[in-house]
Amino acid sequence: MPYSYLKPLLDNNRSKIVLLVLDGLGGISISPEGKSALEKASTPNLDHLAESGTLGQTIPIRYGITPGSGPAHLALFGYEPLEYVIGRGALSASGINLEVKAGDIAARGNLCTLDASGNVTDRRAGRISHQDAAPIINLLNEVQIPDVEVEVQQVKEYRFVIVMRGKGLHPALNDTDPQETGVPPLQVEAQQPDAEKAAGLMRKWIKAAYQVLADQPVANGFLLRGFATDPGLPSYKDAYELEAVCIAEYPMYKGVSRLVGMDVIEVDGEGPAAEFKTAQKHWEKYDFFFIHVKKTDSYGEDGNLDAKAKVIEEVDQALPILLDLNPDVLIVTGDHSTPALLKSHSWHPVPFLLWAPKTHRTDLEKLFTERNCARGGLGTFPAVETMSLALAHAGRLQKFGA
Amino acid sequence: MPYSYLKPLLDNNRSKIVLLVLDGLGGISISPEGKSALEKASTPNLDHLAESGTLGQTIPIRYGITPGSGPAHLALFGYEPLEYVIGRGALSASGINLEVKAGDIAARGNLCTLDASGNVTDRRAGRISHQDAAPIINLLNEVQIPDVEVEVQQVKEYRFVIVMRGKGLHPALNDTDPQETGVPPLQVEAQQPDAEKAAGLMRKWIKAAYQVLADQPVANGFLLRGFATDPGLPSYKDAYELEAVCIAEYPMYKGVSRLVGMDVIEVDGEGPAAEFKTAQKHWEKYDFFFIHVKKTDSYGEDGNLDAKAKVIEEVDQALPILLDLNPDVLIVTGDHSTPALLKSHSWHPVPFLLWAPKTHRTDLEKLFTERNCARGGLGTFPAVETMSLALAHAGRLQKFGA
Repeated sequence: MPYSYLKPLLDNNRSKIVLLVLDGLGGISISPEGKSALEKASTPNLDHLAESGTLGQTIPIRYGITPGSGPAHLALFGYEPLEYVIGRGALSASGINLEVKAGDIAARGNLCTLDASGNVTDRRAGRISHQDAAPIINLLNEVQIPDVEVEVQQVKEYRFVIVMRGKGLHPALNDTDPQETGVPPLQVEAQQPDAEKAAGLMRKWIKAAYQVLADQPVANGFLLRGFATDPGLPSYKDAYELEAVCIAEYPMYKGVSRLVGMDVIEVDGEGPAAEFKTAQKHWEKYDFFFIHVKKTDSYGEDGNLDAKAKVIEEVDQALPILLDLNPDVLIVTGDHSTPALLKSHSWHPVPFLLWAPKTHRTDLEKLFTERNCARGGLGTFPAVETMSLALAHAGRLQKFGA
Repeated sequence: MPYSYLKPLLDNNRSKIVLLVLDGLGGISISPEGKSALEKASTPNLDHLAESGTLGQTIPIRYGITPGSGPAHLALFGYEPLEYVIGRGALSASGINLEVKAGDIAARGNLCTLDASGNVTDRRAGRISHQDAAPIINLLNEVQIPDVEVEVQQVKEYRFVIVMRGKGLHPALNDTDPQETGVPPLQVEAQQPDAEKAAGLMRKWIKAAYQVLADQPVANGFLLRGFATDPGLPSYKDAYELEAVCIAEYPMYKGVSRLVGMDVIEVDGEGPAAEFKTAQKHWEKYDFFFIHVKKTDSYGEDGNLDAKAKVIEEVDQALPILLDLNPDVLIVTGDHSTPALLKSHSWHPVPFLLWAPKTHRTDLEKLFTERNCARGGLGTFPAVETMSLALAHAGRLQKFGA
């Protein structure tokens, strides 16, 4: 449960909270003259909010820990990321709206290429196209074995998700992906005794499925990883009394939002402005808007500082659409840092801007940059405190004790 | 227990620590031009201490949590406020120096007015005056039932505290205050099985007491709430080897100080200067002086920024009385924020000033304000660390490990 001390204090006053996450927002400059993407971007609207609001920086998981997207978002949502671990399979299934209940097991799959001796020669089946992979993955969906129901659904290109539904299944199974070529896929084994039944069934299904693919020219095998079940996360409604919605373009963020009970609505169009207009359209219906912008992270991973800065500028230019809605609390932050200089996620603190014009305490900072956030009025704090701050500034928490 | 790792490190060097708490000190400004009461106040003495000492800001309970005065003070005293919960009845009893031992139960009471059908028509009996209420509360003190001893004592006006002393009592009882008019007082019920005996005895006493008040014209009933027993807090002497004293004007702060084993001495006169002179008078006898100034909070709750600023100025002007005593450590802080803008306690971090002229590390800040404290050398830290910092800067903590 998110902090149990919050629940007795909740006061659902119907105020509106927007959590705008620019994925991988944080960057680094390794010299005083250097500029991160956020420093390089021209962001008059964000700077105005920084000047009137308050800044800080978050530690996504723990000091020095580089987060994956799943735990980083869980932390932002108030779920202690070392306690709540979502298996990748469950996250992927949820991302494509494939039902995984407690007791079902889900895994991610890649189509792959095997040679005559059964060794993996390509772990992604030559990155076979979406259209070419679709009928092959449909073949897998038809493979059924006794005692369980199996559903296989394509995600994108050679990637799919498998869900096995039945009784007495436990997801403590190892990946079959050997993470290298020239060797055969690994056998599924139980990692603890109560997963023996699931291991046996999964081996049986894999064997049947391999026979079905045997004649395929390229995608004649597949690799599975991230076996998991429904993590049973408490919902936003339960934990915070919030009607929450996710506005995101990528499946995995929709997935983690669904796992905490958010509605997920489709974005009409593309890019930040389209996302903000989607929020506008559904403004009356929800209390909490999680809006996710992906491309700051993608360009960070590409090492493309200018493109990352440009995405930040797009967000800044579209910001008036959100501000015109008069949210009670607007938080602009990232889930983690993705410095273009490092071309990867990193452990660096994440810039955090809180603007709540009726309740915030203005600090001395006037620019929304990493270096200003480090001196901000909120200090350096764990990302998992984000929801407590959001609820407090929205007037949704009563006094603790007399 | 306050941090158990402190105890083996304690070195009672007889140095002197002053913890000066301006209740509800923190404020907010919601725009860069705005000013909190602390920013508005002219505080040359405090600013001088800020410049030579070091600043920081505290999180009283947890991020986003608005504290009541009880838990906020426990935190300042080094008692983890989510772990040590003082029932309001025990706190109130302690505030008027009414003994509550482990196994006794205490509750707060209000005289109230009931109509002919027994419904509450006024939860405070027309705010009956102190003089008029006194004889009625004395009548209650005479109501006795078998097996237990009951003591009732007036606090102020229509408010009183009841203590029931006997064997096998447990305080898990619900309030009888329905928190609304037009309905009868609630029946006392046990909230867990081992409180059944106390519930039965309390119902019996209430019945007898109601008969005694039946003929009163206005205060013909009463409501009880906050049933509690002695929380059994470790004492300052035990936890810190400190001879500690409380100098406060309001009962509840005396109460929480008594619960941690502080002596409580009466203030000769009124206001900060009188309190500081009281410290001066007892300087030799004690190691630790908790001095509490209430009116910063009261004016904050009234929304009276100017009056709050004026109280801060009074403290500043009187400060030389304290400084002339040459304390080894002087901490000036609040228990929580009470922004005049919000007219209530709030969750915002609390300004913290530490001045220990032999041991402090000067930082870059020169003014004692919220915005400067956010950039101070101590950073943003939990209020429950206050005592560790006080002891350390007083030279009272030896090295941990070799």
